[in-house]
Amino acid sequence: MEDPRQPEDPRKLDDTQRLIDLAELQSLKARYWRCLDTKSWDELRSVFATDAHLDIDGFVNDGRDTIVDFLAEVLADARTVHMGHAPELDVTGPDTASGIWPLEDYVELPADSGQGLRGYGHYHDEYVREDGAWRIKSSRLVRLRVDPLSGGLPSTSSP
Amino acid sequence: MEDPRQPEDPRKLDDTQRLIDLAELQSLKARYWRCLDTKSWDELRSVFATDAHLDIDGFVNDGRDTIVDFLAEVLADARTVHMGHAPELDVTGPDTASGIWPLEDYVELPADSGQGLRGYGHYHDEYVREDGAWRIKSSRLVRLRVDPLSGGLPSTSSP
Amino acid sequence: MEDPRQPEDPRKLDDTQRLIDLAELQSLKARYWRCLDTKSWDELRSVFATDAHLDIDGFVNDGRDTIVDFLAEVLADARTVHMGHAPELDVTGPDTASGIWPLEDYVELPADSGQGLRGYGHYHDEYVREDGAWRIKSSRLVRLRVDPLSGGLPSTSSP
Repeated sequence: MEDPRQPEDPRKLDDTQRLIDLAELQSLKARYWRCLDTKSWDELRSVFATDAHLDIDGFVNDGRDTIVDFLAEVLADARTVHMGHAPELDVTGPDTASGIWPLEDYVELPADSGQGLRGYGHYHDEYVREDGAWRIKSSRLVRLRVDPLSGGLPSTSSP
Repeated sequence: MEDPRQPEDPRKLDDTQRLIDLAELQSLKARYWRCLDTKSWDELRSVFATDAHLDIDGFVNDGRDTIVDFLAEVLADARTVHMGHAPELDVTGPDTASGIWPLEDYVELPADSGQGLRGYGHYHDEYVREDGAWRIKSSRLVRLRVDPLSGGLPSTSSP
Repeated sequence: MEDPRQPEDPRKLDDTQRLIDLAELQSLKARYWRCLDTKSWDELRSVFATDAHLDIDGFVNDGRDTIVDFLAEVLADARTVHMGHAPELDVTGPDTASGIWPLEDYVELPADSGQGLRGYGHYHDEYVREDGAWRIKSSRLVRLRVDPLSGGLPSTSSP
């Protein structure tokens, strides 16, 4: 009889775990953008680490609650579409990872005003596993370009 | 001598199978959109389960053949681009899965008319493994916004 | 005592290796586009196989160095955004793979001129593992449509 509890090839277990991590990290960022676009502020909270750091278009916020409160306020009257393209993700340790995500965001603020922007750039992210799930630890958006909508930029630029 | 047929750690097999499923599900939806944009109606048929359900922009169709016939007719004169962004995919059983896919579609109908739309939203999908391959079982598009092209919306709105 | 070096189920190893390959292939193309948009010409070199073949919008180039030199020259004065959508990737052998990648590219040339294009299409790619890493062996862009920017197409159309 074989012992079903025998250890597997450690390299192998690592590979499988890393692939699972990559799949979860991909979903994590998709959830972040979906929560922004559907204004699901409670669900958005679960995306961030407790001490998360967010740096977008000159707006810098620290701490999960501060970040979500900021986003909920700035985007309350906006209609947004966030489009995340093919990423580069890297698991850097058992509970740490990093990623670069290309983004197009289409923000009308306020909704139906014709004011807003179409922006393009790369998110540079760090992730951490906290309370058993991957979370965004820090996220910084580096712009390639920002085009105003036909009505011009919003009076307050926004994430 | 080890017995090469010894069972593996079942958790492990499940993990690998789930990762394979996720990769196949990702390709499935990409194939769906490519078939729409290249008008590959025969290949499109293989994407759907026999009793598939499609609900897009008020057009509801049931059954693989009905769905493909509908799409082929509505899009016959259109030029379309479907852009699928980072998804959230979930394998929910040995042969079932679900997913949320952000989409931008750019539809000119008829082609070169300047009429059409740029639409944005999330597909809410259910998948099933049928005849050994993953298929779309149901798909419902929830819009974030729809912008007419410069020539206005098409006389018949379309998927 | 079990022998920790015992061979695993070969099918299983293949599956895991194929999943690792798919993850690396996905990152490879993301790196290609990021290098274009950030004009990282040295890093771009590592993306291509030595004898790579690139066929975009009528520009055909062969050989890694020729390709990178061509791209660096044509895009020197451009502002570009490349957006890669959900792909279909296929590992076809231990060191070969193929893929279809939907793309939107937004090219302003020269930057701030208002001249350029928004293009849409599918990359049809072949990949090869060379010097231990996946590289683009051949890449051909098949267009769905190309829209000029408000200032018209650039005098020289570009990748």
